[in-house]
Amino acid sequence: MECDPIGHVETPFDTTGEAPRQGFLGEQSGTVHVDEPFRRGLTGFAPGDSVLVVWWADDADRSVLRVREGDRGVFTTRSPARPNPVCLTTCELIAVDEDAGTLEVAGVDMADGSPLLDLKRTLEASGEGAPP
Amino acid sequence: MECDPIGHVETPFDTTGEAPRQGFLGEQSGTVHVDEPFRRGLTGFAPGDSVLVVWWADDADRSVLRVREGDRGVFTTRSPARPNPVCLTTCELIAVDEDAGTLEVAGVDMADGSPLLDLKRTLEASGEGAPP
Repeated sequence: MECDPIGHVETPFDTTGEAPRQGFLGEQSGTVHVDEPFRRGLTGFAPGDSVLVVWWADDADRSVLRVREGDRGVFTTRSPARPNPVCLTTCELIAVDEDAGTLEVAGVDMADGSPLLDLKRTLEASGEGAPP
Repeated sequence: MECDPIGHVETPFDTTGEAPRQGFLGEQSGTVHVDEPFRRGLTGFAPGDSVLVVWWADDADRSVLRVREGDRGVFTTRSPARPNPVCLTTCELIAVDEDAGTLEVAGVDMADGSPLLDLKRTLEASGEGAPP
């Protein structure tokens, strides 16, 4: 399956190794840049929203199947190094400019320049209740 | 970016249109099949775990940018029809067989046969706290 980036993420981290293990562990903010053809899909976002940023870990080792000295399967973790390095970060939306295709967000953990695959409303924010 | 399926999902739904809007809205269970080369990545899963299933909506219309009569941008929703139809379903693990590469899960909303891209521990289950 071919994923085409819809933009990229600008953050203070050169690599995923420099980033906090999950975005919410840090206080860093960054900017999500959405390419022009996709900006119509941003209508409805507002500051304060919880946004799930779906990105691709370009620098990931895709051969990793075990982590933590081989004791844990990679699928039981959130490590960016995995066969398909589709990564998820829940961010808080600070500001959105639909025309410019930019979202200022808090709680980033992506490497700078990471390709953006998707944005989603979080389950908690979707008004459809929480998982059981 | 090229995503290679690591398996597929077996569910009672012929299309995503037949499935509940989010897995947890239904009571249906299904089976996640993980291909042989990736089964070593399953070590550490146990019944009762909350598992995030990352799958590809094969039947998605990838041209959709607005939904609900054009009022809402697709990125503010969880619709499977989106430019990169990477979909997320939080399931409860009923049983796991690492050698066979099968996970029986409750709360499915995938179309039968959907390609599996990834499995992740949910944030809530990762022991790293919840987002702010």
